[in-house]
Amino acid sequence: MATHETPVLFMDRSRIRENYLELKKALPPFRIAYAIKSNSHPEIIEILKKEGSHFETASVAEIEKLLALGVKAEEIVLSNPVKAPQAIRRALEHGVTIQSFDSVEELEKFKEFSAPIGAEEGGLFAEKKDGLPYIRPQLRIVVPNEGSMWPLSGKFGADEELWPAIFQYMKDNNMRLDGITFHPGSQCETIAGWDSALYLTWRCIEIAREYGLNPTTINIGGGLPVNLGRKIPTAAQVGKVVIRHLKEWEKKGFKPSNLIVEPGRFISGSAGYLVSRVVGVARREKTWAFLDCGVFTGMMETIDGITYPMLFTGTGEKETAMLCGPSCDSVDKMYEAQISKPKPGDGILFLSAGAYTSVYASEFNGFLGPKMVFLDQIADARELFNLVT
Amino acid sequence: MATHETPVLFMDRSRIRENYLELKKALPPFRIAYAIKSNSHPEIIEILKKEGSHFETASVAEIEKLLALGVKAEEIVLSNPVKAPQAIRRALEHGVTIQSFDSVEELEKFKEFSAPIGAEEGGLFAEKKDGLPYIRPQLRIVVPNEGSMWPLSGKFGADEELWPAIFQYMKDNNMRLDGITFHPGSQCETIAGWDSALYLTWRCIEIAREYGLNPTTINIGGGLPVNLGRKIPTAAQVGKVVIRHLKEWEKKGFKPSNLIVEPGRFISGSAGYLVSRVVGVARREKTWAFLDCGVFTGMMETIDGITYPMLFTGTGEKETAMLCGPSCDSVDKMYEAQISKPKPGDGILFLSAGAYTSVYASEFNGFLGPKMVFLDQIADARELFNLVT
Repeated sequence: MATHETPVLFMDRSRIRENYLELKKALPPFRIAYAIKSNSHPEIIEILKKEGSHFETASVAEIEKLLALGVKAEEIVLSNPVKAPQAIRRALEHGVTIQSFDSVEELEKFKEFSAPIGAEEGGLFAEKKDGLPYIRPQLRIVVPNEGSMWPLSGKFGADEELWPAIFQYMKDNNMRLDGITFHPGSQCETIAGWDSALYLTWRCIEIAREYGLNPTTINIGGGLPVNLGRKIPTAAQVGKVVIRHLKEWEKKGFKPSNLIVEPGRFISGSAGYLVSRVVGVARREKTWAFLDCGVFTGMMETIDGITYPMLFTGTGEKETAMLCGPSCDSVDKMYEAQISKPKPGDGILFLSAGAYTSVYASEFNGFLGPKMVFLDQIADARELFNLVT
Repeated sequence: MATHETPVLFMDRSRIRENYLELKKALPPFRIAYAIKSNSHPEIIEILKKEGSHFETASVAEIEKLLALGVKAEEIVLSNPVKAPQAIRRALEHGVTIQSFDSVEELEKFKEFSAPIGAEEGGLFAEKKDGLPYIRPQLRIVVPNEGSMWPLSGKFGADEELWPAIFQYMKDNNMRLDGITFHPGSQCETIAGWDSALYLTWRCIEIAREYGLNPTTINIGGGLPVNLGRKIPTAAQVGKVVIRHLKEWEKKGFKPSNLIVEPGRFISGSAGYLVSRVVGVARREKTWAFLDCGVFTGMMETIDGITYPMLFTGTGEKETAMLCGPSCDSVDKMYEAQISKPKPGDGILFLSAGAYTSVYASEFNGFLGPKMVFLDQIADARELFNLVT
């Protein structure tokens, strides 16, 4: 069997598929739009495309990457709430109409591409304005992010106080509001994240209606967590809460025609196994274990506090070691962990490492990010140690 | 004149040369080994090579990049104190003999390549061991890093308590100690950093001698600062302190045959001007200015607290804005600054941005790092706004 030089990020094709199907089962009426920022490897995109997945992007480059892989424009959403004016236009030229905003400033950029209030959903796709399809603006609202490891609010999202000014602007300029969207924050580890977000969404719909706006799309963003060694809600549990809200809304006469969920980490995270090696050890005040992967070669999220479940080739006595990367940079430190007493050559495998790792890698100091290797199925993670040199 | 799409990192060729010559003047007896990790663009390497510069590396990939550009092996030092065993060997195969260490664990890897204690400097280069040149081990010691924005100690360096065990190991194994090295920390803004480091270096030399070891190389690392808007010592001021110590050592009968300094930021930092654009603004509880460059497109050091001097195309009233990057990532936030009231399309120019920017860039979220453009001389930074679209 072929062996690979560490660091290697092994990806489990079956697991990617299973994660997709698990979410589909939990949220049957939803379009799943995979957040390619979490891991944009073409093979993941191909696998998901075959299952019928749609895709979430933040930039024109991401859109063009998907189009080049045969994804259709109507299967792509652009959920970055702040974009360069030329990016908005370019996306529309490609046919990507679902675009987020969270400020009047961004709405000003949308104005020239906007459909009038009351335009019918069906007609929206048929009609064009100056040769471009109408934009379908999605208001990104702020929701509590307490359950998340990476709270997003602050940088993105309009809170309740800003909604009246936004809706007034849309009313004054006869701009159709297509949808409401939120993000509970990446790796959201509590159901309450979705529950409170959906109550807020309903509040937002009510206020929008007061301005004569009738959103028909609801996009619940991403945030579905992976196993990092703590108790987390399952997709089924998240789905139950979401579906409960949808039913309540239906009783009140609101049935969105378009439902979107944007998982990233949930799809690619648990499918990835990062295998690295100890290159050196220094036992000083604390023990430092230097690995061939580090902050700049994929483990960027560690500086924000993520710790991965791990497996080791070493056995026997454990030792507390500060894991750090191979570069000469002081920032290139990961976290302290109890690991088998490290020595050069030992293997360390990080679980749930398929998302937000390889995509952050630079070539700093001449150390490259992990090579990605796709396997049909990874039944026993431990066996991956046999596939590396 | 050709215009470039933002973000662009303009590099001033003359300034690179001038920075090199300024340091050469401040530290005449020193070999200057440019730390290519700060900015490894081939054009910088070519400019410095012509001036007679040597180079500092951390990895085999960096060494091979330099060799491919025609740099000679004896002009390269490998100052990463922790390396994979195969990296040590590979570097020696290439002829790179000056290699750092800071632990007994790393010395164990050096053992097979080591010259005997007492081997003459001249003979060292002539002789070979199993077809490989002898390694020239440099002990990296811990020095105070208080004046530095990025303290390095902890991850690297042996403190005084560890020296006896290290020297005993070298004595027991008849391993020649070639030199002592330290690093005052990147962007060291106080002369005291070098002063205290050199007292410690002398202490280390004395203790080494007690074990029969006679280091002949002194490598004072990098750390020379650039203008980030605060008072900083000049190269001449740093040089004065260093030369004073060398003279004191000479009086005590110690004259190193090999002196090395490893500037990175000092050479490339002030020569770089990063021009970016505001892509969007959101006025909420605070004002957020979204730029086309951010943490993942070069401004990585901002998450560790760096703030750059800036110029703006906007004029008039100022506003406090949180500068952030174009990606959908919550980590992609830089810092709060007083800037001309931002609107989409405004230009923002970051000064002293030639080092530790482009080298950290990934392609996260489809946003690329700054394009690098070399100009012969940048007399007025403001004119760079005319060179971008």
